[in-house]
Amino acid sequence: MNIFCQSIGIDVPIIQAPMAGGADTVELAAEVCRAGALGSLGLNYTSPADILTKCAALREMTDRPYCVNLFAPEKRVPRATRDEALERLRRYFDELGIEPPTELIEPYIFDDQFQAILESKAAVFSFTCGALSKPLVNAAKDAGMLVVGTATSVREARVLAQSSVDAIIAQGAEAGGHRAAFLNESESPIGTLALVPQIRGAVSIPVIAAGGIMDGRGIVASLSLGASVVQLGTAFLGCPESGIPDAYRRALRAADDESTVFTDVFSGMTARGIANRFTREMAAPDTPIAAFPVQNDLTRPLRARSAEFDSPDFLSLWAGQNLRRYRELPARALVRTFVDEMRAARMELNQCTT
Amino acid sequence: MNIFCQSIGIDVPIIQAPMAGGADTVELAAEVCRAGALGSLGLNYTSPADILTKCAALREMTDRPYCVNLFAPEKRVPRATRDEALERLRRYFDELGIEPPTELIEPYIFDDQFQAILESKAAVFSFTCGALSKPLVNAAKDAGMLVVGTATSVREARVLAQSSVDAIIAQGAEAGGHRAAFLNESESPIGTLALVPQIRGAVSIPVIAAGGIMDGRGIVASLSLGASVVQLGTAFLGCPESGIPDAYRRALRAADDESTVFTDVFSGMTARGIANRFTREMAAPDTPIAAFPVQNDLTRPLRARSAEFDSPDFLSLWAGQNLRRYRELPARALVRTFVDEMRAARMELNQCTT
Repeated sequence: MNIFCQSIGIDVPIIQAPMAGGADTVELAAEVCRAGALGSLGLNYTSPADILTKCAALREMTDRPYCVNLFAPEKRVPRATRDEALERLRRYFDELGIEPPTELIEPYIFDDQFQAILESKAAVFSFTCGALSKPLVNAAKDAGMLVVGTATSVREARVLAQSSVDAIIAQGAEAGGHRAAFLNESESPIGTLALVPQIRGAVSIPVIAAGGIMDGRGIVASLSLGASVVQLGTAFLGCPESGIPDAYRRALRAADDESTVFTDVFSGMTARGIANRFTREMAAPDTPIAAFPVQNDLTRPLRARSAEFDSPDFLSLWAGQNLRRYRELPARALVRTFVDEMRAARMELNQCTT
Repeated sequence: MNIFCQSIGIDVPIIQAPMAGGADTVELAAEVCRAGALGSLGLNYTSPADILTKCAALREMTDRPYCVNLFAPEKRVPRATRDEALERLRRYFDELGIEPPTELIEPYIFDDQFQAILESKAAVFSFTCGALSKPLVNAAKDAGMLVVGTATSVREARVLAQSSVDAIIAQGAEAGGHRAAFLNESESPIGTLALVPQIRGAVSIPVIAAGGIMDGRGIVASLSLGASVVQLGTAFLGCPESGIPDAYRRALRAADDESTVFTDVFSGMTARGIANRFTREMAAPDTPIAAFPVQNDLTRPLRARSAEFDSPDFLSLWAGQNLRRYRELPARALVRTFVDEMRAARMELNQCTT
């Protein structure tokens, strides 16, 4: 066990990724924690009061360390106005028999959420889709948390290191869900196998590998690349404890290595998910998409209604590229399986190579 | 050492990738072979007579096994006519003070090249950018070669496996040079870390990992993912034995993780290389690009002139995404370094994880 895992207080070098869309229930995080890994709560769409309630509920279920996560409050460049984006979506509201939202539901104010995070008693605070100022990072550290930023390039990793974070998640292009990129988006997103060693070589703090890791082989590979810990999101979606709709689960089961695309049509920010009717029909480059979080707010009723109808058509089916390795196991059994597979992969490695 | 390496007859599970553009000189292949790895000659742009001459020269220098490579003769979909593509390029011919080519230099006929391959006395015949028929694969096997196809998805790997190849190169999105994709190009190219285990799980023949591997960490990671051997191209470009122009070498030295893009403006087929003036100025989606090999033929004089002028502006600077790990060592020393790094990575792995 490496020093970074010891400083977090986990037995297994695995983080269950925060997945703010509802997948990462308190039950899922608790079971992951009980298995000796780090359970996470993605709290970006959660009110300050509910942040505290959820963390208290998690502490009721386990006394193990856990992780909380927010998006950094970056300025997003608008591509279309709310009205333009809504006009394009109106046909779907009509089809699904619901009224379009009349006004923007203002997102929670970051500073208020961050105050709740400071009182969350979490062992780790991670953030994504931006950088935080050094005073904010230090405030979280002073509250007793390890602070972890997310990078998709060496340039971003260096910005984060300068803000005095304790570790960096290297999110490769294979990763499902929102891309963490916050500097000018690279023309060609960097794969995990190339990203991890380059970030590891450029900063002196621990690196957490993320993107396309679905089993013990992927975990051992990531540790070989120089990661101290790995973070898996898609791999936990199939757990009975995850809170995804049935139609999402069926889409994951049916998907393969070619099923996912990058899309910003759900939220206004680029994310990887399984292609479906909505991503295809909205894919034209001139489709009006509002900035995050406005687009996210506009599509929320469509996503909710799609789940009610048990249809994948308008769900954001976030998932990474290693979908043929998707499986459905209870979280605790899944973590145990990872540990067994890691042992097997290391043995194979020691036997079969020069 | 695994069985597949034994069947090839190499001591180190490393293949120096064939790089048909001139990088993979006979000297480079010979030095790689002498180090116990598999040296390769990319022969797609080489006449049948020269294929035999080059292979004879390589055998003069070493009695070790080596690999020869061709592109499969797939039908390429034309996007623009030769005249349209040439019209767009005319400004560059003017600027560089050379005459545009008046007629297409016909590429060598695949069947003739393949006949030379059958007489090449190579241990391995690999091919890329397409599939070959089972009779052709069997002809190469009957000539005493292991036959290896290249896939960028599980679908492609299955097509290749059905053609009875002996092994499959899993080329991840990180890879430099031409993408092997020959079925409908996936909307979102699959990263090495996600591709290797999925292909490994789908076929029963050995898998060779390629894409973003630049050091012992990357090699051990790829073996952990289930690869039997790894193939590295960009990592060998910096060897003094490689035949690239000085301007290309300087571009590699200056490049970082964000430097490369996918582009088809040089050859008409998608390839990854360092962005430069030519890729940027030709990047607009409506730029007329002829199909491979017509576009490749049209840009050849521009590339040659750019090298004469010691300028990177019109060179095809093929390279993968792990460019911060680029280094310049003689080929034999480089292979030795890989072996040392592999040992170190495995030791670190055995010490530091559960």
